[in-house]
Amino acid sequence: MTPRQARDGAQLKPVPHGLLQAFRAYESALMSDDVAALDALFADSPTTLRGDAAGLIVGHEQIAAFRAARGGAPKRRIVQTHVQVIDEDHALIVAVTELDRGGRGLQTQLWARDPVRIEYAGWQVTAAHVSAPEPAFDSRIWRTVGDPLISSHTADGALSGETVAVKDLYAVAGFAVGAGSPAWLEQAPVADSHSAVVATLLDAGASVRGIARTEEFAYSLSGLNAHYGAPPNPKAPGRIPGGSSSGSATAVALGHASIGLGTDTGGSIRVPAAYQGLYGIRTTHGAVSREGLHPLAKAFDTVGWMTRSPFLLQAVGDVLLPDSPAADVDEIHLVPSLVGLASDDVATAVGDALPDAKPLAWAPSLDEWRQAFVTGQAYQAWQAHGAWLETRLDTLGEAVRGRFEMARSVTREQAAEARAVLAQARAEILDVVGDRVLAFPSASSVAPTAAEAAEVRDDTLRLTCIAGIAGLPAVSIPVRTATGLPAGLCLIAAPGRDRDLLAVAARRPAVQA
Amino acid sequence: MTPRQARDGAQLKPVPHGLLQAFRAYESALMSDDVAALDALFADSPTTLRGDAAGLIVGHEQIAAFRAARGGAPKRRIVQTHVQVIDEDHALIVAVTELDRGGRGLQTQLWARDPVRIEYAGWQVTAAHVSAPEPAFDSRIWRTVGDPLISSHTADGALSGETVAVKDLYAVAGFAVGAGSPAWLEQAPVADSHSAVVATLLDAGASVRGIARTEEFAYSLSGLNAHYGAPPNPKAPGRIPGGSSSGSATAVALGHASIGLGTDTGGSIRVPAAYQGLYGIRTTHGAVSREGLHPLAKAFDTVGWMTRSPFLLQAVGDVLLPDSPAADVDEIHLVPSLVGLASDDVATAVGDALPDAKPLAWAPSLDEWRQAFVTGQAYQAWQAHGAWLETRLDTLGEAVRGRFEMARSVTREQAAEARAVLAQARAEILDVVGDRVLAFPSASSVAPTAAEAAEVRDDTLRLTCIAGIAGLPAVSIPVRTATGLPAGLCLIAAPGRDRDLLAVAARRPAVQA
Repeated sequence: MTPRQARDGAQLKPVPHGLLQAFRAYESALMSDDVAALDALFADSPTTLRGDAAGLIVGHEQIAAFRAARGGAPKRRIVQTHVQVIDEDHALIVAVTELDRGGRGLQTQLWARDPVRIEYAGWQVTAAHVSAPEPAFDSRIWRTVGDPLISSHTADGALSGETVAVKDLYAVAGFAVGAGSPAWLEQAPVADSHSAVVATLLDAGASVRGIARTEEFAYSLSGLNAHYGAPPNPKAPGRIPGGSSSGSATAVALGHASIGLGTDTGGSIRVPAAYQGLYGIRTTHGAVSREGLHPLAKAFDTVGWMTRSPFLLQAVGDVLLPDSPAADVDEIHLVPSLVGLASDDVATAVGDALPDAKPLAWAPSLDEWRQAFVTGQAYQAWQAHGAWLETRLDTLGEAVRGRFEMARSVTREQAAEARAVLAQARAEILDVVGDRVLAFPSASSVAPTAAEAAEVRDDTLRLTCIAGIAGLPAVSIPVRTATGLPAGLCLIAAPGRDRDLLAVAARRPAVQA
Repeated sequence: MTPRQARDGAQLKPVPHGLLQAFRAYESALMSDDVAALDALFADSPTTLRGDAAGLIVGHEQIAAFRAARGGAPKRRIVQTHVQVIDEDHALIVAVTELDRGGRGLQTQLWARDPVRIEYAGWQVTAAHVSAPEPAFDSRIWRTVGDPLISSHTADGALSGETVAVKDLYAVAGFAVGAGSPAWLEQAPVADSHSAVVATLLDAGASVRGIARTEEFAYSLSGLNAHYGAPPNPKAPGRIPGGSSSGSATAVALGHASIGLGTDTGGSIRVPAAYQGLYGIRTTHGAVSREGLHPLAKAFDTVGWMTRSPFLLQAVGDVLLPDSPAADVDEIHLVPSLVGLASDDVATAVGDALPDAKPLAWAPSLDEWRQAFVTGQAYQAWQAHGAWLETRLDTLGEAVRGRFEMARSVTREQAAEARAVLAQARAEILDVVGDRVLAFPSASSVAPTAAEAAEVRDDTLRLTCIAGIAGLPAVSIPVRTATGLPAGLCLIAAPGRDRDLLAVAARRPAVQA
């Protein structure tokens, strides 16, 4: 197809020598995934740009790394080419592509000629922007999605118009619970009725947008499901979404749903909320019905949800939480020893969010507690899933498999010891919290990259296990670090004070990310 | 945020005067939907470009029309700005945006300065490329979609690995049939079991990707559902998808599914297949079970499907069609009188696709037949839906409502007259077809724009009613017009010769678009 050349003012500029040859060489290299040629055709500068819907990559080195890792571009042919000539050494080329897999794409490239270079007559791309047709939906985020998947039960409820991303642990009538495991899903029965929480949300006017991905049996905090991939983190591109309520969190962060229904056993609401700049609550243990919820560790499992607005976070609480006497929260106590467990950027962001908070001196034995929590959770997880998993550990991804293998090895005696430590810890936590609201980071860091995910797990668990051990409600409020990454400010209070924490969050929208 | 300025070679070029002010003015105008300011900030040239995932718009006038119609851009803020300065009068600006509704976008603009202009120091955009985060899924194409929505019944079948977009007329267990009508869907019962065709496809190893949109009660050929919008036509951007199997067709054209299951009463497979460059078959009337299929007009309704590959079209036929004796097709007869009913571009494309076809002289009374077909179909459609629609005509979109109002007015006598015409027509068609394969255009034109849709309906129905009246199988094979738009070559044969037509299509992949 003949390229259409741009008119600049009234005068047509000739297409510079060698430009179209370089353009075709690029296309050919892209189709054969000739990474060396592609690298040579992009300007070797830290300001070279390459972007698409997934984000912008800055710098030749980063672009080369992306190319080396991706294993080729989708096969396509060019169906239209438009050249805007700027001068002899600069031109913009906009091309419409037709993909073999279906649909059309668009590509914009700024080309510059370096007269010193011989290859490709000196032409190189200094900036590229690519659009390709999206798949039907992002199966890293969703298992199933609809408009709606399940209609609300009323057009005139407190949550009418809201849409729920249901973590794939809650029964949705007509679907099996998949629990993030393809092997489990394959043999799981189709649910006859909705889980209690889903039914209540439908009764309140919300509709179910879809069933959101989680990690295998929710036994993770990263969001890196080995089978379905990791949902993206739109607020921190290239970093993990946080889990295990990962799909629900990303769905809300992307505006696919307004309410991300999840669970929190040891941080599975608070961590993705913090990593993705969302409001989140894990409710008091036992306060919200777990009927129809696939368990991980019943002594610790709680219902939770995430939203982009603190008011909606509270509105969902009004629907799901039992009535309780309200108590105004006049004072928030920041716990410096817990803030100190976080990375500097997160500690600063959390401290800055609460300039007037009173410090509370407390030095809990967090290493011991975390270990006991991990052991107690593991013992329960094996109680819940060991019979089925015993012969199916090889169906699990590496990280979750390691955790279940550890869980299988926990003896009755070790579990009893852990229980004793946890009982003491619970008493201490309840005593220290009393009628206070305590504040500290929701997670120990901003969202790490996938490669760093394992490193931060223990540090984050030291913080998240506190509410987990004592069955406390915890609200995560989004803050931003100095570099603009999301982090979470966690508020905890005595069991049953969920509504008080939600009121604090709704009163402080200025803190939001 | 301070823009990062690009390094060109080793030398930093200063950001030209007024550029960033113009950039900010553009952003501000975009957020307030100040169309006049936006128009003034785009170069007034027929080569100015504006593209996104939905397509490329060429020329200031077309871009202005797009802007005037769209009612504003999604609210966003800019979180990163990168400037590549080319010279004093040219620069590329790449910006990362964060959308209020969630997710990040990317925008690339080439700016040029016209020293003669005073406004914005002469700066204008000559090309813009925008990426915005996609919604959870495209609800114009799909009602519900999953990974998969329904698992295949075997991993080792003839259709294993294939994915089906099920037109929202076929029962899928666990879901109500929506028939393209929100009012119908609201009160429709959830199906206990799959429709026969869906069950057979699952048994053969295909999985259900999702439930695809159709038009209200499938009573249309345009794909313009008044409630859910029109699925896009990726092969002919800006033009209608064709209907009523519109969602299934677009899903296949975009690679969301490999098999688009639909129905064809008066062209609802052949028209979208032609408009979107797909292979399609409407089967012999009654040859494939309609159990669990929501009817439009039972005397004419047939099962059909669309694919991107003629081999898959045939493979699905091997699964769904009854066994029949195969007869080789040595000769195809082109019917000049029917080719002549199409627009010139389509007639040429169809003729060119069959250079060796024998012409067959035939001058059917198509105006009379079309009218009788429309009347007969309408009478049956009201028989099927009148009781429910009588008090609910106001729930329908304008075009379909008009058709049902006409249907309601058809008298028993008119229906009887139409039946008599159709019986004669059927006899003539069967006689002319005999053991031949006839060829003519699948639709009278390429996909029109939405505004032109009503104009082409009658012309297309004159062609499509032939197979409809006589219950013939019809295969649509994609061809391209001189300007590259998709069109369809339709082959018909005697009832029961579905497999012979599929074999012809599979033998002629060179004809494909």
